[in-house]
Amino acid sequence: MMQLPKGTKDVSGEEAILKEKIVSTLKEVFSLYGYSPLDTPVVERYETLSSKYSGGDEILKEVFRLTDQGKRELGLRYDLTVPMCRFIAMNPNLKLPFKRYQIGEVFRDGPIKLGRYRQFFQCDVDVVGVKSMSADSEMLMIAKEVFERLKLPVVIKVNNRKLLNAILESSGIEKDKADTVMLTIDKLEKFGEQAVKEELADKGISPDAVKKLFSALRVKGSNAEKLDKISKLVNDESISELREVICAGVEFDPSLARGLSYYTGTVFEVFLKKSGIKSAVAAGGRYDKMIGQFLNSKLDYPAVGISFGLDVIMDALKEKNPELESTLTKAFVIPIKEKKGAAKIASELRKAGINTDMDLSGRNIGKTLDYVNRMGIPFAVFVGEKEIRQKKVKLRDMKTGKEKLVSVSSAAKIILSS
Amino acid sequence: MMQLPKGTKDVSGEEAILKEKIVSTLKEVFSLYGYSPLDTPVVERYETLSSKYSGGDEILKEVFRLTDQGKRELGLRYDLTVPMCRFIAMNPNLKLPFKRYQIGEVFRDGPIKLGRYRQFFQCDVDVVGVKSMSADSEMLMIAKEVFERLKLPVVIKVNNRKLLNAILESSGIEKDKADTVMLTIDKLEKFGEQAVKEELADKGISPDAVKKLFSALRVKGSNAEKLDKISKLVNDESISELREVICAGVEFDPSLARGLSYYTGTVFEVFLKKSGIKSAVAAGGRYDKMIGQFLNSKLDYPAVGISFGLDVIMDALKEKNPELESTLTKAFVIPIKEKKGAAKIASELRKAGINTDMDLSGRNIGKTLDYVNRMGIPFAVFVGEKEIRQKKVKLRDMKTGKEKLVSVSSAAKIILSS
Repeated sequence: MMQLPKGTKDVSGEEAILKEKIVSTLKEVFSLYGYSPLDTPVVERYETLSSKYSGGDEILKEVFRLTDQGKRELGLRYDLTVPMCRFIAMNPNLKLPFKRYQIGEVFRDGPIKLGRYRQFFQCDVDVVGVKSMSADSEMLMIAKEVFERLKLPVVIKVNNRKLLNAILESSGIEKDKADTVMLTIDKLEKFGEQAVKEELADKGISPDAVKKLFSALRVKGSNAEKLDKISKLVNDESISELREVICAGVEFDPSLARGLSYYTGTVFEVFLKKSGIKSAVAAGGRYDKMIGQFLNSKLDYPAVGISFGLDVIMDALKEKNPELESTLTKAFVIPIKEKKGAAKIASELRKAGINTDMDLSGRNIGKTLDYVNRMGIPFAVFVGEKEIRQKKVKLRDMKTGKEKLVSVSSAAKIILSS
Repeated sequence: MMQLPKGTKDVSGEEAILKEKIVSTLKEVFSLYGYSPLDTPVVERYETLSSKYSGGDEILKEVFRLTDQGKRELGLRYDLTVPMCRFIAMNPNLKLPFKRYQIGEVFRDGPIKLGRYRQFFQCDVDVVGVKSMSADSEMLMIAKEVFERLKLPVVIKVNNRKLLNAILESSGIEKDKADTVMLTIDKLEKFGEQAVKEELADKGISPDAVKKLFSALRVKGSNAEKLDKISKLVNDESISELREVICAGVEFDPSLARGLSYYTGTVFEVFLKKSGIKSAVAAGGRYDKMIGQFLNSKLDYPAVGISFGLDVIMDALKEKNPELESTLTKAFVIPIKEKKGAAKIASELRKAGINTDMDLSGRNIGKTLDYVNRMGIPFAVFVGEKEIRQKKVKLRDMKTGKEKLVSVSSAAKIILSS
């Protein structure tokens, strides 16, 4: 019996249709904001993937490794950021700002848990070469527009790494403990305040520092009020950065940390409102140092990006509407001893822009109707001698079972408006 | 210095835009004919890829091999047909006919020549479970529609493997030599009649058989006339199959062989008219035995499919129109000390459906206009204090350099209609 490799899946039928829809929405929005597609190979040289400033040791353990005939060491890409950096390195004359999006498979040969795959899709949009907060704002606008179009109500949580560092410092937490404290704070949403406080105590943070820290992280009020209160506790440029970035539909959350260590400024995560799905559907931030370090360049490559989670967005749309579209086909033409005439009708429906299938197998009408029904195609179009003589077709609404004798153009109108 | 793996490439800028366009045209047409997307993983188990009835020994030498953590043997897929067969095997309740398309990367670790890559895209559309010639006709209609939409004039050459076998037999060529003779005939277009005749002589085919063979392969006239003439030489069911399939825009070519050995009936290749590009831009045929053998099943899985060559289609479109679209962005908003106002204008243009970029970097106007120009964006939109007061924008046509003070809605109209 044939099998899939562990941790991989086929996407077919209604899932594949849903995926196509999400991907085309993402592409539309990315283009609307002036981003261009980039497509890089699935395989990269291992030395690119293992560069010091790329994913880090943990991720390298999960690289699928292979060689080519020349016995060069290769690997399957584990994200789309490293290939983008390699592309920038290889194209020194690239015009900045460089605004690109990429949607593609990435691979991690890690342990398999529920919902964790060894091949999955990333949908990344990044702008490289812009220091100003306009770029960070643009990312938030893109996130808003994507989820508006997908009709998924979301809340966008925003913070700034520099602010979090300043809060840690003003709470009296030592600089060398900042990274580990950040990792603990990142668990706040998931495990709650009590667990986080205990972990901080275990890490040797004094009760006084924890208290100060939480009084800042837990400020209440509107975005502006929270910023005002925090600005009285710390004095940092990130406060004016946040004032620029925060807008309607965005929630300032001073406890938002984001796991990845390469973020240097704005960070954001997008969560669903009224959903059982608690993980972020998109996330990103500003990473001003990473590309320059990666390229070993003295030039500055300020950058900000956002990554959309295709699988979790699919889950969210399925949760909201369990009755997925099972086919893109709107009409199914059934010839009654009139193959040529039926082919002509199918072709006319297609010319009207209707996705039209046709009986190719010559099965009897009962079996064919059963197929049309099970495929979820909304209309059947019968074409027989009588219909052709009258220059009409018999249109059957598969849901109601009602049939009508109408002209092809009326049939097209009915199908298109349904 | 960072490098790409040998035999791979990045697709960016105007090439990436062109590729997106071709892919979306293909998807549109495939959907119009009732085909649904399928997406399978890039990695497959090596035992699936090396199944006896898949690609054969030659292709197995070119499989990129790897293992997962469980040390299972895996490989990168070398085509999209084997994954489709594996999908059918794993889904025994699949409704037939199964109409699927798949567009994706495939990998071959072979020698690198000009235009031969180790990672390239295949765009396949197949219908499984239909014996009747309606399916073969549908493939030809899809090919016609795709190239019509891409505005590439093509000729579609059609033949039938059974007819070619019958011609070989009636010419007195031994059955055990049929395969090797077929391979030689396949070279006719490329190397000419003389070379093919010499190779046939080398393979021990008698001058008399060669003469008979060529009198059939070289019949002249319209499609109907050629079929009539051949029907007097051989008597085979493929003649009525061809009569069903052949239509306007299709050329019957009894010498068309197609390299792959798994074809069992109709075969076709699509060539560009008036082009320097001589290789086929699409090709396919009927393969009634392969899936059943692959699945080791007693059930019949008649199938017919066509594969579009994304790279050669890209080359054809570049040949026809060397001035490629360098960006999808139509307007670039330049704020003159009016960041907020400009952002509002950008958002209005986007609402009108115009792909709009905006200055994020705060460079001076000269540098920004230079960027807009080099990016090939057709319109610049200036927004300053004066414009905002008058509720207008200054629209600059980047080609002519002409500027106009107009309302945002007029600007949108001008941009959309350009």
